[in-house]
Amino acid sequence: MHANNEIGTIEPIEEIGKICKERGIYFHTDAAQSFGKIPIDVNKMNINLLTASSHKMYGPKGAAALFIRKGTKIEPLIHGGGHESGLRSSTVNVAAIVGFAEAARICKREMKKEAQREIKLRDKLINGVLKKIEGSQLNGHPKKRLPNNANFWLEGVEGESIVIQLDLMGIAASTGSACSSEKLEPSHVLLAIGLKPEQAHGSLRLSLGRWTKEKDIDYVLGVLPKVIEKLRKISPIK
Amino acid sequence: MHANNEIGTIEPIEEIGKICKERGIYFHTDAAQSFGKIPIDVNKMNINLLTASSHKMYGPKGAAALFIRKGTKIEPLIHGGGHESGLRSSTVNVAAIVGFAEAARICKREMKKEAQREIKLRDKLINGVLKKIEGSQLNGHPKKRLPNNANFWLEGVEGESIVIQLDLMGIAASTGSACSSEKLEPSHVLLAIGLKPEQAHGSLRLSLGRWTKEKDIDYVLGVLPKVIEKLRKISPIK
Repeated sequence: MHANNEIGTIEPIEEIGKICKERGIYFHTDAAQSFGKIPIDVNKMNINLLTASSHKMYGPKGAAALFIRKGTKIEPLIHGGGHESGLRSSTVNVAAIVGFAEAARICKREMKKEAQREIKLRDKLINGVLKKIEGSQLNGHPKKRLPNNANFWLEGVEGESIVIQLDLMGIAASTGSACSSEKLEPSHVLLAIGLKPEQAHGSLRLSLGRWTKEKDIDYVLGVLPKVIEKLRKISPIK
Repeated sequence: MHANNEIGTIEPIEEIGKICKERGIYFHTDAAQSFGKIPIDVNKMNINLLTASSHKMYGPKGAAALFIRKGTKIEPLIHGGGHESGLRSSTVNVAAIVGFAEAARICKREMKKEAQREIKLRDKLINGVLKKIEGSQLNGHPKKRLPNNANFWLEGVEGESIVIQLDLMGIAASTGSACSSEKLEPSHVLLAIGLKPEQAHGSLRLSLGRWTKEKDIDYVLGVLPKVIEKLRKISPIK
């Protein structure tokens, strides 16, 4: 992963790519979270294969991209009519692809300015939460993280309870990845960075986007401490 | 295949399903061409697995359905986040699925009436071509065929040349399947039903749809004989 989907940490893929190249190993990076948000240089980063997804960057669902460096040999997963030079059989969703391309064009044009704007808001959110809520901690790297991601451990509360309370107040939040929202197990990412299972269960992911404004951050900073205080009283987790 | 994509022939899948059931073999049918156009009864036809595609029945691209009879064991092809109970990982394209469902609802409601309408137009087209063009022959079954499909062998002409000429006159036609439109080999379907390679190359597929009107059929019947006559003169195939 170029950047982690749950905690937003940007991985040192340039170094990883270098090690792979030196040893003649193909390097694939999942850039679903980073594509369109932070710069990517497939040459400098020694990337052989890169995947990106349209709906993660304001494009329509139903389109994704696979960058394949010239000379990289790959095998198709889906066989059939032989579309896309045999690499992925299936009728091409032209409308979704055009939308994806346009979304990518806009992301590229706005990237620098938008990243700066989101980092400012994100840091206001992070600093505000850490200051206003006792027993709170940032998950993931404080600086090497996506401009749009904040992830907290909030002591003594259940993440899912916070999500439900925030939902009632018009705030969309999550505890981990959307893919795993059915599962009850604690996030494998949070466990991997050293959180205990009860800490992972008490974590909250807040994401920003192109339409997040400063007043939204202020709203979250206003209500979140009250929600945590209430939950710690009515359903405390030890 | 429940119905063939090139020549429209409806296969005896009820009998095939019966044979499979008697021998304990899973029966999968590709109903991309037939779903929404002719009746399907998964119980009567002993179908274990059935695939259907949204964009083949006026729905948006990007959605398809797999019917799985209860108890049928299947293995996923695409692994990852575990979506759709682990059967197909990947963010669900809700808009395309809703469009597909609505398209299916409309197809079901209109099916009987629309099939009768298209069969009438299709038979007018078939009879007209066979009568007006010497050295023409219908490919596929005259009765057991999709309401919307007509496929001809036209002696002494190259199918691709006809397609180009018709395109200039505002008529969209094809020589075989869209999947294989890049290939120069003759259609494997036409070869399988006994046509010689030069006959398969001289074949033309004309499809009807919900918006095809009688005046469109009349237009094709007016221009096609002239196109064939012209092509036989300027670039005859022996």
